[in-house]
Amino acid sequence: MADGLTHLNARGEAHIVDIAGKPATRRRAVAQARIVGQPQTIATIMGGSLKKGDALAVARIAGIMAAKKTAELIPLCHPIPLTKVSVEIAEHGEDAILIVATAETTGQTGVEMEALVAASTAALTLYDMAKAIDRAMVVTDICLMEKSGGKSGDFVRA
Amino acid sequence: MADGLTHLNARGEAHIVDIAGKPATRRRAVAQARIVGQPQTIATIMGGSLKKGDALAVARIAGIMAAKKTAELIPLCHPIPLTKVSVEIAEHGEDAILIVATAETTGQTGVEMEALVAASTAALTLYDMAKAIDRAMVVTDICLMEKSGGKSGDFVRA
Amino acid sequence: MADGLTHLNARGEAHIVDIAGKPATRRRAVAQARIVGQPQTIATIMGGSLKKGDALAVARIAGIMAAKKTAELIPLCHPIPLTKVSVEIAEHGEDAILIVATAETTGQTGVEMEALVAASTAALTLYDMAKAIDRAMVVTDICLMEKSGGKSGDFVRA
Amino acid sequence: MADGLTHLNARGEAHIVDIAGKPATRRRAVAQARIVGQPQTIATIMGGSLKKGDALAVARIAGIMAAKKTAELIPLCHPIPLTKVSVEIAEHGEDAILIVATAETTGQTGVEMEALVAASTAALTLYDMAKAIDRAMVVTDICLMEKSGGKSGDFVRA
Amino acid sequence: MADGLTHLNARGEAHIVDIAGKPATRRRAVAQARIVGQPQTIATIMGGSLKKGDALAVARIAGIMAAKKTAELIPLCHPIPLTKVSVEIAEHGEDAILIVATAETTGQTGVEMEALVAASTAALTLYDMAKAIDRAMVVTDICLMEKSGGKSGDFVRA
Amino acid sequence: MADGLTHLNARGEAHIVDIAGKPATRRRAVAQARIVGQPQTIATIMGGSLKKGDALAVARIAGIMAAKKTAELIPLCHPIPLTKVSVEIAEHGEDAILIVATAETTGQTGVEMEALVAASTAALTLYDMAKAIDRAMVVTDICLMEKSGGKSGDFVRA
Repeated sequence: MADGLTHLNARGEAHIVDIAGKPATRRRAVAQARIVGQPQTIATIMGGSLKKGDALAVARIAGIMAAKKTAELIPLCHPIPLTKVSVEIAEHGEDAILIVATAETTGQTGVEMEALVAASTAALTLYDMAKAIDRAMVVTDICLMEKSGGKSGDFVRA
Repeated sequence: MADGLTHLNARGEAHIVDIAGKPATRRRAVAQARIVGQPQTIATIMGGSLKKGDALAVARIAGIMAAKKTAELIPLCHPIPLTKVSVEIAEHGEDAILIVATAETTGQTGVEMEALVAASTAALTLYDMAKAIDRAMVVTDICLMEKSGGKSGDFVRA
Repeated sequence: MADGLTHLNARGEAHIVDIAGKPATRRRAVAQARIVGQPQTIATIMGGSLKKGDALAVARIAGIMAAKKTAELIPLCHPIPLTKVSVEIAEHGEDAILIVATAETTGQTGVEMEALVAASTAALTLYDMAKAIDRAMVVTDICLMEKSGGKSGDFVRA
Repeated sequence: MADGLTHLNARGEAHIVDIAGKPATRRRAVAQARIVGQPQTIATIMGGSLKKGDALAVARIAGIMAAKKTAELIPLCHPIPLTKVSVEIAEHGEDAILIVATAETTGQTGVEMEALVAASTAALTLYDMAKAIDRAMVVTDICLMEKSGGKSGDFVRA
Repeated sequence: MADGLTHLNARGEAHIVDIAGKPATRRRAVAQARIVGQPQTIATIMGGSLKKGDALAVARIAGIMAAKKTAELIPLCHPIPLTKVSVEIAEHGEDAILIVATAETTGQTGVEMEALVAASTAALTLYDMAKAIDRAMVVTDICLMEKSGGKSGDFVRA
Repeated sequence: MADGLTHLNARGEAHIVDIAGKPATRRRAVAQARIVGQPQTIATIMGGSLKKGDALAVARIAGIMAAKKTAELIPLCHPIPLTKVSVEIAEHGEDAILIVATAETTGQTGVEMEALVAASTAALTLYDMAKAIDRAMVVTDICLMEKSGGKSGDFVRA
């Protein structure tokens, strides 16, 4: 380990760390992302229930499918058979949308990265659909909200 | 188009919009992401040139490879043959790291999403490597910095 | 070519055929698939506009994303930069749903497989969501409806 | 659950359903697809054992590899570590070919979708190889033939 | 460029190099791989025309499909729309099999990596199928045989 | 099984063999690859510790990420949840670089192919980065060095 970075060995070389000795436990992680834009853009995305069409569904599914690709995207992540993934999208003030992604597995390592990848991909998908009307939108506050399971203990964002 | 969301048709249904009539022009996009953490974490990631090992390289390559996967991640993105991708990572104050990704193509649609996916994936990869020592880190300020090429005109973040 | 199968050479060996000498033309293909089930199942999937939730959107996006994966799925397909993809889903009698997928490109080979993959994947996605209530549903009548562009001439199903 | 669609929550939003509480059992699914065409086309594909070359092998392998990609194609499918996949292809009357795919796993959810994706992809691969001589071929009768394992009970098509 | 390594910039950082200024020309590369094993193993793989079954077809298709994945595997490769791919497999003395892969495109960069990835993946696929009877087999002599197109000039192995 | 090729059935047809009856054991495989080139090329790649930049890291990460893609590349491989992957790269005489890849899992089948894919992809990635200065380099001696776990017994290359 180089200075506490568990994914690097003593020579600083990247590797996928050995988890074979860890017990399989039930693990859960919740992550969020926010996308901030003009109130008009936010209203257009969130729409009324009839007008909005597929916009939120596209983002939700993009997040869910990206969670399943996490080990392809994050080089040193272990492949994990997810047992549950969900993505919730809600208005967050007049100028923002909040995305909350939950991932679960029963396994030897946690699913923080899966939840983070789901939340950030859903947010970028909203950006993609609305960028023609508001190219300046910002995806922000991508972070882990809570995790449970595994020997490193539970985490709840203060 | 539903309320200005170009990726939805008049009935609100998602589709990949027709770009066959657009001319192929040279296009470039620059996006950024920031990761904010404890000063000690940031110092560990950035390290001295000998100690740091592969950490920044892993993030750089993760960003580059993710850019090539953009059309797999963002459901309504066109597949684009990128002609250049780069990811730069630098310390940004004592508690943050700034990632700047550049993507280029010669084609019928822009590469904003490719640059954004590269920047956000590089940031999440840094999180993955350092999360054992600082689970509370936040990836933030993911946004387009500039784009050029295409009929929608150039964009430079104010 | 073995007996007219263009994807096999004179020794019967599979290969991706050479298209470098063909001109790039605008190409379009429309394919369909039908899913047949109990009237109750069809009504549940199609639902009322408020109740249906994401069901049709999930199928639509699955079809669109699968079209972009065609060259990964069909071994001898050329990779093609699609310029447009859409998937339409409509009730087709009380016991069936009709899916129509359209793919377009400007290139040296056609997009029939992309349209067929989109239609069949959208249909299988509907099956996946409804299989808990009607495991006996059948996906049927997957076929090319029309194509245009390229030297083999236009095709319209009789 | 929205009207019995298990993949949608009470608000109609798509998610990957929680299977963590389900026991891991041995599961098996068999699915079929048929491709119907001109007798001349069917004879060309099936060929004599020496003339046929790689045609059936290409379709078989396409089906097997697609089964492993099921969770990438069907948005709400769980990733599943398959323990067996096979695809059998046989003439079915003078104007059709029958494809039968079998998938197995030991896990918390079934492999119906894996078998269906294998059968339909093998059929579409045959279409791809023969489309130059018979563009009107139809892929049809894609359905589950039997499944076993899991609490929803066994299924055998009547 | 760091010491002549074109994929690293002046600071030694990896990037996908800019090819936008290069003309699109017709490009072709031929690569080989050899697999060496016990004569009995080689005979079993190559078999008689009736007995061999799908073995060579599986390797051929694996090579072809891997060529299309080159930009996913080799981090700094540009995505390239291949116009032709073929893989030929032949006995090479009693203790070896020779694989020759050809890749072609019309584009701004070469297809050497695509041909090399096809040849090596076909060889590893043969190893996979025969490893139960000869685990000591070696894949060797993976190299570029010739290339043409592009400004760096033609190459023919001496 | 056709002549001892376990991946073919009695009719010579490819399939993914049934492993459901095998016990899950801890499995480990080590594979190597060598790349041979001009001494000047080898020195440029290996560089001094400050000058080398990302070259070795790119190859290491390419190998690690490819190991996770093994079941996508090798048609009849089972998908395997790897518990550890590492790739080591060292000078091997003045004209060669030696790559050693280790893969581990706890499961019903071995990880030889994962280790071999990692080693060969890392080697090809080094070729890609250095090909502009030495197109004649050869990747060679790709072989299994040792394996343990599973009923076929341990293997150590003589």
